[in-house]
Amino acid sequence: MENQKVIFTIFGGTGDLTYYKLIPAFYQLFLGGRILDDMTIIVLGRKNKDSASYREEVKEVLMKKVSNYNENVFVAFSSKLHYYEMNFEKAEEYEGLNTFIDSKDCHNRIFYYATAPTFFPFISEQLKDKKLLDVKGYARAVFEKPFGYDLESAEKINATVSKIFGEDHIFRIDHYLGKEMIQNINTVRFSNQIFSAIWNKDSIDNIQITVKEKDGVKDRGGYYDKAGALRDMVQNHLIQILALVAMEPPKNFNNNSAKEEKVKVIQNLSIQSELESHTNLIFGQYEGYRDEVKVDPDSNTETFVAMKCFVNSKRWEGVPFYLKTGKALDESIAKIVIEFKTDGSSTPTNTEKIPNLLVIKIQPEEGVYIRINTKEPRSESKLMSVNLSYCQSCDIFYKSPDAYERLLLDILNGDTAMFTGWEEVKSAWELISEVVKKCPDKSKYLDTYSKGSDGPISSHDMLKRDGRHWWRVDDMNNNFE
Amino acid sequence: MENQKVIFTIFGGTGDLTYYKLIPAFYQLFLGGRILDDMTIIVLGRKNKDSASYREEVKEVLMKKVSNYNENVFVAFSSKLHYYEMNFEKAEEYEGLNTFIDSKDCHNRIFYYATAPTFFPFISEQLKDKKLLDVKGYARAVFEKPFGYDLESAEKINATVSKIFGEDHIFRIDHYLGKEMIQNINTVRFSNQIFSAIWNKDSIDNIQITVKEKDGVKDRGGYYDKAGALRDMVQNHLIQILALVAMEPPKNFNNNSAKEEKVKVIQNLSIQSELESHTNLIFGQYEGYRDEVKVDPDSNTETFVAMKCFVNSKRWEGVPFYLKTGKALDESIAKIVIEFKTDGSSTPTNTEKIPNLLVIKIQPEEGVYIRINTKEPRSESKLMSVNLSYCQSCDIFYKSPDAYERLLLDILNGDTAMFTGWEEVKSAWELISEVVKKCPDKSKYLDTYSKGSDGPISSHDMLKRDGRHWWRVDDMNNNFE
Repeated sequence: MENQKVIFTIFGGTGDLTYYKLIPAFYQLFLGGRILDDMTIIVLGRKNKDSASYREEVKEVLMKKVSNYNENVFVAFSSKLHYYEMNFEKAEEYEGLNTFIDSKDCHNRIFYYATAPTFFPFISEQLKDKKLLDVKGYARAVFEKPFGYDLESAEKINATVSKIFGEDHIFRIDHYLGKEMIQNINTVRFSNQIFSAIWNKDSIDNIQITVKEKDGVKDRGGYYDKAGALRDMVQNHLIQILALVAMEPPKNFNNNSAKEEKVKVIQNLSIQSELESHTNLIFGQYEGYRDEVKVDPDSNTETFVAMKCFVNSKRWEGVPFYLKTGKALDESIAKIVIEFKTDGSSTPTNTEKIPNLLVIKIQPEEGVYIRINTKEPRSESKLMSVNLSYCQSCDIFYKSPDAYERLLLDILNGDTAMFTGWEEVKSAWELISEVVKKCPDKSKYLDTYSKGSDGPISSHDMLKRDGRHWWRVDDMNNNFE
Repeated sequence: MENQKVIFTIFGGTGDLTYYKLIPAFYQLFLGGRILDDMTIIVLGRKNKDSASYREEVKEVLMKKVSNYNENVFVAFSSKLHYYEMNFEKAEEYEGLNTFIDSKDCHNRIFYYATAPTFFPFISEQLKDKKLLDVKGYARAVFEKPFGYDLESAEKINATVSKIFGEDHIFRIDHYLGKEMIQNINTVRFSNQIFSAIWNKDSIDNIQITVKEKDGVKDRGGYYDKAGALRDMVQNHLIQILALVAMEPPKNFNNNSAKEEKVKVIQNLSIQSELESHTNLIFGQYEGYRDEVKVDPDSNTETFVAMKCFVNSKRWEGVPFYLKTGKALDESIAKIVIEFKTDGSSTPTNTEKIPNLLVIKIQPEEGVYIRINTKEPRSESKLMSVNLSYCQSCDIFYKSPDAYERLLLDILNGDTAMFTGWEEVKSAWELISEVVKKCPDKSKYLDTYSKGSDGPISSHDMLKRDGRHWWRVDDMNNNFE
């Protein structure tokens, strides 16, 4: 760990992300002794306030949000925390920021862009022009998602920021990659002979990646209505998960080797979209979405996407990857279901065939579930499925840290492994562009669904047509449906 | 189910097996409505008593042994139960038996030999000579283990009994085959893609079959001292389990197809015995064994056997099967441990290698355990093993029946699938003969071990030499050592 004295500057310091994710994560790291005392956090905001009042706001948030809040720890922690009033859209205000940061006498600088992507280039240019990057130590940039709105804008942003910081100093956050069970995918896949030996088309029938949210857009309508589920969720989280599940074993697990393998998967992803026949790409919008705050009353933005895709490789030939994500659904859950084939298994005396399942539960519960078949006791050879489960989040000892804790530490340590490389972002946007091209007029194919449902029926039909169905995992009794 | 009116005659009706195993099993089948009302059970004994007093004895046993004992059910049940006084060693007493059985007016007859194997031919000949087998229905013979004491005696017994009854009407009991989890081996192996696809030398490192008993010989010293662990346990139970685990998938799972595959395994078993260097065949005797009742004070009988063998087939080339069984050990447990390789699995960033395990627990707990690796939470990529378990015997709903219930039903239904065919018995005895030939003078190599231990240290050295160790499964917290 090369954890050293550093100034951490956050653009967008008065946004929800900073209050509810970044500051609590810093607090936990501080409490756990995992960040050094000589770190300074500067949050920038347009509002007129001083550090003392900002600290009071933070204190209130922490007291509510953090179960292990401690007053003494907070006092020590908050002394590292500074508020600096500034409008980052104004070029003339950067010199003052430079002076302020310089006064802290520290040559390692991290700039965290908790802003809309349109500001990434401008802020970066100002930092460079006003000499904020002229330091003896390192200068790193952290970009919150989304990195652009489409291929073109992403390329434009990247052209500027990569020239200024260099790819090795850029951390594009996809906080899903910081989640314990996402990081666990590599271990589960590659450190278990019983899985690594059958991780291919010969044994796997299909793979389902699901990220469902109960919430609607809430107060994020302004952003969301421009983005939609495809850009907001599929382009980053779902494609990243798919890439981790499908990639070839990297030569080693250092930063670049695994990223190269992920890029290959994304570049070889093909979406079997035949929107005309409405089969393998489903867009949905929940009833009432057009009435949400800051949402266009005629909006055709999708709040739900389900799609079937294939990875064009020897390993995955013919194995469908089904993706599903949406808002205002019946449950909040993120999971990967690997459904195994039944061909290879010959059932003792009957013709019953029940597939094995491997489920990696990402949230809210974290764990691994395996469904296997045994003989029903007392019966001659009737199959009975049993679920073998390991629930990581049920074990208090192993309570998982918030994704941001891990990611902030990685940033401080200069480790970009859990961040999205430009080639990954680019190929994901290329894929999304392809999808968008295939359906120029979404309005014709947008299925509505009621709030609290499992999404439009067409997403079920998509699998039904293939003789399959979406697997549910019941949290309460670990039943699979 | 061709379950029909039948007379079930038991030779050795006053032995422990009849009181504690057969009668309670019949009672449960009767209670569950799984045997018909018009069945008659005749127990034969040398002692002078009548049916009424025999029923009283049975009642006492049932009241103690059976948790769901019911007086009314017992009255109905015991009316089927008759005691007949006879010395089955005397030829002149069989005509009387015929008259007695004839009086029950039933043409289906089952003769159960709960006697030492030396009596199998004589009883069978008498039954034939005195016309007890001249029936319009069927005549079946059930032979308790052991079926002979060695290859020669087994062949001699079989020559007689097979001529009289015919192989299809002979049921050689190995009660292990009636156990739920033994019957489950086929299902676990063949109805799960995640196991069937990797059930071979490419993925499996070694297989351990362990049957340990806490008890010493107790009052069975007379029999046991002549038999020893090799004949008493390895020849039947352990080799049968090994055959089920190692056999090729049978064309179908009817009686003969699976038996043929098991025979092939046994015939291709090779014991890597180099007794001189005391490596792959370990005999042990517990301290104090020679003082047990009816045991020769100079006895060289082994009460413990551990051995390493190989199945000469494409599937199992180079995969050691380690067998271990013994009396007066630290625990009573029967289990199969499949240890998978770690070669194929590449661990993310460290070189740690922890094998996956599949454990089939046969008794006292019945279940399936899988040990897999996950990432230790908060760590970057440190491996952590977790145990995923399904405990069948923990579920009251699925309380397993005693092995004898299942086997008695199969006998009544004429289903020999769960019984040992002659070819299996023969090849198992051939194997044992080979072993015995390799160590003509056991006394030189008999290791002693203390009661309540895990057997002689040499059995641990055997695996240590191979860079392996015996896996223990801790019942209490499911830990694997």
